[in-house]
Amino acid sequence: MPRRFSHRLRVRYSECDPQNVVFNAHYVAWFDILMTELWREVPGGYAGMRGAGTDMVVAEVGVRYRGPAHFDDELDLSASVSRLGNTGMTTHIEVVRGSEVLAEGELRHVFVDLATKHKQRIPDDVRRSLEPYLEPVGAPA
Amino acid sequence: MPRRFSHRLRVRYSECDPQNVVFNAHYVAWFDILMTELWREVPGGYAGMRGAGTDMVVAEVGVRYRGPAHFDDELDLSASVSRLGNTGMTTHIEVVRGSEVLAEGELRHVFVDLATKHKQRIPDDVRRSLEPYLEPVGAPA
Amino acid sequence: MPRRFSHRLRVRYSECDPQNVVFNAHYVAWFDILMTELWREVPGGYAGMRGAGTDMVVAEVGVRYRGPAHFDDELDLSASVSRLGNTGMTTHIEVVRGSEVLAEGELRHVFVDLATKHKQRIPDDVRRSLEPYLEPVGAPA
Amino acid sequence: MPRRFSHRLRVRYSECDPQNVVFNAHYVAWFDILMTELWREVPGGYAGMRGAGTDMVVAEVGVRYRGPAHFDDELDLSASVSRLGNTGMTTHIEVVRGSEVLAEGELRHVFVDLATKHKQRIPDDVRRSLEPYLEPVGAPA
Repeated sequence: MPRRFSHRLRVRYSECDPQNVVFNAHYVAWFDILMTELWREVPGGYAGMRGAGTDMVVAEVGVRYRGPAHFDDELDLSASVSRLGNTGMTTHIEVVRGSEVLAEGELRHVFVDLATKHKQRIPDDVRRSLEPYLEPVGAPA
Repeated sequence: MPRRFSHRLRVRYSECDPQNVVFNAHYVAWFDILMTELWREVPGGYAGMRGAGTDMVVAEVGVRYRGPAHFDDELDLSASVSRLGNTGMTTHIEVVRGSEVLAEGELRHVFVDLATKHKQRIPDDVRRSLEPYLEPVGAPA
Repeated sequence: MPRRFSHRLRVRYSECDPQNVVFNAHYVAWFDILMTELWREVPGGYAGMRGAGTDMVVAEVGVRYRGPAHFDDELDLSASVSRLGNTGMTTHIEVVRGSEVLAEGELRHVFVDLATKHKQRIPDDVRRSLEPYLEPVGAPA
Repeated sequence: MPRRFSHRLRVRYSECDPQNVVFNAHYVAWFDILMTELWREVPGGYAGMRGAGTDMVVAEVGVRYRGPAHFDDELDLSASVSRLGNTGMTTHIEVVRGSEVLAEGELRHVFVDLATKHKQRIPDDVRRSLEPYLEPVGAPA
């Protein structure tokens, strides 16, 4: 079983809309926060990776919304890595309140050379740091 | 050939991040703006639909990012309706700068009773207003 | 000496702009987060106050920016109450990183009847809860 | 009488909060949009000024909220320049719906050397471009 990396956040008033629920785009912004936190597992963090000349860009995102989140809710975001390729990775993300899954989705990143923006291999230390979160091949969805 | 509904917007400085490109979550917020504009095709608009007791909620979103958008770019968002079911619709959305597709994705909405939040049939006038934008079955992707 | 109420937050990547600093409007959104946290001092919190028929609206905000905040900074926001009137309050807010004041400002709220939106007196329990944070009259700025 | 520079925008759904009004911080983001548009009056625009080595940073903002703005409102933002100093300028901004002033405020910018971030004189072409919008000294508030 892969570990899931998790991070708690609290819904801001400014993230809620007149339907009295979190506006859908903010989930995508939260996914990014989770990635920032996940990157603390990498020695030197995101700043270190950039300092060594590698950046990452978002290539694809998907979210399925299962139930609304409300102002002041405490939410647990968690990530497992569903694919760790040569130059790209896909993260599977869940947004949970207590035991209720409010949303889940994927974020696909591509690693690029910071200067040229061309694809490049995932740095070794990044790969090693993320492997504990990698889902086994053939794992049930 | 279905018509595409389109709407132009200009990238705001506050939508750009330290990579000097539009932060990914804002595309999802833009999709919502496009839906607001599309709804002007419906008699009475979104407010009219709500006044008649129907609301819509986002069930799913997906975005593929093909190239970066920058501060002050003028972008053309366009939508076709890829599915118009009994209680749900899927919109296919493109974000284009000139002739370059910067992103494309889907937004799936479910229609609900405003009071109970239970699924309900798409109102007839909404359906009629969206049909001109419906992609033919079996259309190439 | 009044107490200052404080709350820590971490700068999100999406809050930073191409100048590589936090975009100015986000400070105002942070002020609101601080107020949410401050309201936990009130029995029943903000939800309780609304449940009892009172809401509050922002009448005025001011921010002086002294130095930039950057991605991933941990910031301490703190508030004292500079004025607690019959129907309005003014909060003085500081945004600090370590010992450096990055910004400071004020937020003036007016209390309103939730239903009519007319001004109303600050509820007694709210007043009592905020008094420990009230700056003495004639305090140096 | 100074000219006022104006720009129309439409309230986005994502800018509205559970009180069914525009969340206060977004006005500050709108002020920035207005500045972007105002800068088109400067030959070469904001990009041109930066290309010539000058940038500007926000030093202070203030907003007085007079009435709520709602989803889908069309708002006219307008600016006059209340002070054009050696290294800084202050803009007075109004947010109007029809004939109703919903908010007004000020934005104070400081001009800086793009590379060093030190204060510098306002470039001559910027000054000339903004002078038509300058309020006369001693003008009533």
